[in-house]
Amino acid sequence: MADRSTRRRAVATVCLSGTLEDKLVAAAGAGFDGIEVFEPDLVASPWSPAELAARCADLGLAIDLYQPFRDLDSTDPATVARNRRRARAKFDVMAALGVDTVLVCSAVAPDAVTDDDELAAQLHAAAELAGERGLRIAYEALAWGTHVSTWDHSWDLVRAADHPALGLCLDSFHVLSRGGDPAGFTAVPGDKLFFLQLADAPQLSMDVLQWSRHHRLFPGQGAFDLPAFLGSVLAAGYAGPLSLEVFNDVFRQSDPARTAVDAMRSLLALEAALPVDPLVLPPAPALTGHAFTELAVDGSSGPVVADVLGRLGFAHTGQHRSKPVQLWEQGSARVLLNAGAARPADGEAAVVALAVESVDPTGSAARAEALLAPVLPRTRGNAEAELSAVAAPDGTQVFFARTGPDGWPADFLPTGETSAGAGLTRTDHVGLTQPFDAYDEAGLFYDSVLGLDAGSGSEVAAPFGLVRSRGVTTPDRGVRLALSVSLLRRGGGWAPGVPDPQHVAFATDDAVGTARALRAAGAPLLAVPANYHDDLDARLDLDPALLADLREHGLLYDADADGAFLHLYTEVLGGRVFFEVVQRLAGYDGYGAVNSPVRMAAHRRARQETRAAAPSTRSR
Amino acid sequence: MADRSTRRRAVATVCLSGTLEDKLVAAAGAGFDGIEVFEPDLVASPWSPAELAARCADLGLAIDLYQPFRDLDSTDPATVARNRRRARAKFDVMAALGVDTVLVCSAVAPDAVTDDDELAAQLHAAAELAGERGLRIAYEALAWGTHVSTWDHSWDLVRAADHPALGLCLDSFHVLSRGGDPAGFTAVPGDKLFFLQLADAPQLSMDVLQWSRHHRLFPGQGAFDLPAFLGSVLAAGYAGPLSLEVFNDVFRQSDPARTAVDAMRSLLALEAALPVDPLVLPPAPALTGHAFTELAVDGSSGPVVADVLGRLGFAHTGQHRSKPVQLWEQGSARVLLNAGAARPADGEAAVVALAVESVDPTGSAARAEALLAPVLPRTRGNAEAELSAVAAPDGTQVFFARTGPDGWPADFLPTGETSAGAGLTRTDHVGLTQPFDAYDEAGLFYDSVLGLDAGSGSEVAAPFGLVRSRGVTTPDRGVRLALSVSLLRRGGGWAPGVPDPQHVAFATDDAVGTARALRAAGAPLLAVPANYHDDLDARLDLDPALLADLREHGLLYDADADGAFLHLYTEVLGGRVFFEVVQRLAGYDGYGAVNSPVRMAAHRRARQETRAAAPSTRSR
Repeated sequence: MADRSTRRRAVATVCLSGTLEDKLVAAAGAGFDGIEVFEPDLVASPWSPAELAARCADLGLAIDLYQPFRDLDSTDPATVARNRRRARAKFDVMAALGVDTVLVCSAVAPDAVTDDDELAAQLHAAAELAGERGLRIAYEALAWGTHVSTWDHSWDLVRAADHPALGLCLDSFHVLSRGGDPAGFTAVPGDKLFFLQLADAPQLSMDVLQWSRHHRLFPGQGAFDLPAFLGSVLAAGYAGPLSLEVFNDVFRQSDPARTAVDAMRSLLALEAALPVDPLVLPPAPALTGHAFTELAVDGSSGPVVADVLGRLGFAHTGQHRSKPVQLWEQGSARVLLNAGAARPADGEAAVVALAVESVDPTGSAARAEALLAPVLPRTRGNAEAELSAVAAPDGTQVFFARTGPDGWPADFLPTGETSAGAGLTRTDHVGLTQPFDAYDEAGLFYDSVLGLDAGSGSEVAAPFGLVRSRGVTTPDRGVRLALSVSLLRRGGGWAPGVPDPQHVAFATDDAVGTARALRAAGAPLLAVPANYHDDLDARLDLDPALLADLREHGLLYDADADGAFLHLYTEVLGGRVFFEVVQRLAGYDGYGAVNSPVRMAAHRRARQETRAAAPSTRSR
Repeated sequence: MADRSTRRRAVATVCLSGTLEDKLVAAAGAGFDGIEVFEPDLVASPWSPAELAARCADLGLAIDLYQPFRDLDSTDPATVARNRRRARAKFDVMAALGVDTVLVCSAVAPDAVTDDDELAAQLHAAAELAGERGLRIAYEALAWGTHVSTWDHSWDLVRAADHPALGLCLDSFHVLSRGGDPAGFTAVPGDKLFFLQLADAPQLSMDVLQWSRHHRLFPGQGAFDLPAFLGSVLAAGYAGPLSLEVFNDVFRQSDPARTAVDAMRSLLALEAALPVDPLVLPPAPALTGHAFTELAVDGSSGPVVADVLGRLGFAHTGQHRSKPVQLWEQGSARVLLNAGAARPADGEAAVVALAVESVDPTGSAARAEALLAPVLPRTRGNAEAELSAVAAPDGTQVFFARTGPDGWPADFLPTGETSAGAGLTRTDHVGLTQPFDAYDEAGLFYDSVLGLDAGSGSEVAAPFGLVRSRGVTTPDRGVRLALSVSLLRRGGGWAPGVPDPQHVAFATDDAVGTARALRAAGAPLLAVPANYHDDLDARLDLDPALLADLREHGLLYDADADGAFLHLYTEVLGGRVFFEVVQRLAGYDGYGAVNSPVRMAAHRRARQETRAAAPSTRSR
């Protein structure tokens, strides 16, 4: 059986940011067996090919492919001669590198050969040249090749050229972006499949070259069915490395050590999803709900957040045995206020951890570790309940918890405080603003490590720029995270209050009743403009009684194909956190993202009003 | 004659970042006469429509358009009825705003009417509803409308509907992205042209909706022929405001005050380029060359840069009469080292100003002022030569100078120092790394304010991310600036040495001889990898003697359709500046951008070697 110990994994240097040295260190650090050397990385390197080979050997990395050789074939005899000279020079480089396979892409130049017999002859001649050196050519159809743009066409040519040093390179992007059918791979003898490149991509309606050069993703981060693709390649008898080749504008400028781990995680998850002979990973134990959300607070924000939790109907029910941590509860909604934790530099309060109920916390941690999630040191004392935790891509600590007498609550001494509550029953979701570089990584992380389903997401035009968001959820929706990110990195910009704050959303079965209770308790609810409700009235045939309730209580509204969503927000507390109250009606499955521009404008206004005299408003 | 005093200018709130309040202040500050209110901005605002109208009146802004009304027509009678209700509600809002025109886009919904007679009837009915309220409908064909996607089709429908409250809205993006012909506008009576929206865009091969929503630009920043478009609209008798409607991801998150000025500048330049009745602006006097480039230095970097200039063959020829400023000269290449100027926070040395030779410095300043360039206070003393200066979008000071006995050199006392030189004759170009938000603004700035031509530019995959660059030049190439920017904003990232440093490039007529002289003088030339020259050898049929020279002297090479380019770089000095030496052969017109990844990798290596023990290298 092919498993992690026998199947080799490689990554193209073009996937990673930095100089060649940075890339090698990152690839080796993430556990890759080999690399594809992208020519521009070598050209810019001070290492000779032999020095590069030695450095790779030191790091335990094989060099599996040299690439690319472009525009090999030509209708112009002078160009053909020049290309033979170029090929000889590159074969010298390959010999010094100790790599035996070169990628030759189908030509994109205007002088590309369009006669298949002639093209096969030119490929044969090049393979002869390579074969004399003990090298081999993997021929790949670029999706935008002048004459050859589909994998079947490239296979026709390889078969016609009929040379032992000539085989195919299959690239999932080039095949799947053209709607190619991987089922046909089984017609190719396995020993003619010289190389395999794997990349995912979102489904985009754009020029395929631009799509390929800027928007590729690692497997599992896009829309392609890569388990089926890889399954077909392996079923055809491919025995070479599984190699990632991802051109992505964000990965090109992100920390390569992180990107390489993300890349390796994508391969492990892909292999585990194979239809035949899957990689065996520890299973992801079921997650049954949110156990708690932990906010780091300081001396200034702690009392403010505690006061607001009180007004939201929470009771301070527990005090940690040894640390300055308060437990606040309402129904099964739980918030920890930790005055002893490190906070981000840009806020006095922040979501630093979330705990999910796992039916097997130890198993959850084992799954996470197998998928390269950074396991965090258990900072809780010896006498206290063990909590396994891993770091999410945005730095949030994710705890695997069991809420019960023998679990984490045992760390807390009861205060005896109670509250009548305001109708909040549980944590609906935690909203986490993602660092610009971590959005795609985060989707794959939660999907593979925690077994959550990543939704397709949405994009809204917010006051300070476009924002993308998507939910990641357990199948039964007991655990929900709402991830968001700016479409373009922000920072150093003009707008205050960016990045957008994080939030914790609590569920109620009666949004109107809860809203009434919160207002009576003096909770700092965010003012919603009257224009918003006027527009709802104009656009939707809402029940007049419902609309009156929405207006009276400052509730926002959304609907999807199944149901409806009523929600309200608090003001931002301590610079980086707010709370939300949500009611889901009849299976509504979103997060009211369409209303977030209204919220952001209101949050900005509230911040300005805190700082200066209030301007004229017509909010309620 | 239509000129600035009679023609009204407007901007859609969707062009600007922030809340409605931010947008109004920005639009008024840039001198706009009116705005288009984009509905989501109003919905998120705490102002009632009447309060918004009052605020606009306070700021001297008319409300010229309310938009958009989407999906008005439908094949479903229930939807038609609901849309009438929605229209009545929005007409109430418009009455309170005091705006008389609403934009109705062609429908994009699946239930859009596809029978032209029925569609005209529904438009007629809507116009009747509007007309009763004294309002009017401007109907616009969206380029991706379900049934109506061209302006001629929208005009057929308006004509068929035949209602005085129904007219056309022409949007340059929707017309020109579909290849529509503006010459046909003259067939439309001027009083049926209810509104005009102007936007430019780069020529992109992508889904037209995404192109429109993310990549629009202000006039003059893209590829559309807007003077011809606007000329046709005006020739047809349009008498309404010239209104900008630009959806752009970067503008959405940039300082709105700056964006509004950029927008107004684009309109002024557009009107000045009209084929008939152009706006009269002060002409841009000819610029004949680079007078000097000024670097801010501190006590640590000043001596280092001075030492390097000496090794490059410059002589310290002048000392400022009253300030700690040195003049260094070689041929007509001149560098000022200013130890008294403010530097950016991230470097010990930086390009802070450049001076261009103007045949009429006062006229250049008048042109700049008319195009809203920030005129800088003249900080030079009273007894000293006057130098008019404006701030470029990146903050660089641009001086309009005349080099001669009565000009700025009179501020400098001769030191009597001389140098044999190293063959540098003049400043070829100044390379300015642009802030992420300012790239498109900068192109228009240099084009309109200084009369430079902005080239189409290029994009390269650099070690730390994709980089765009383009030259802006005088027609005779006497003044050249090379602007570059990261494709995505960087910052807070992992890579050292970003943003990329700025540079000054000097011309030589003998790159090999100059390189030999610089090496003999011990100039800190950047090491170029042997792999780079091996690759040149493999790819190009270079004269073996030339290749040997390139190898020996660490020169880089590029070629374009006309000629070739030999160049070399120094190491980075003081964190933010390096020098380049270039030789242009036979009319080469680029900047060797293809070699910049090699340079960046080498600069990173040199920085690392400065900090730590040098790793094994094979550079010369």
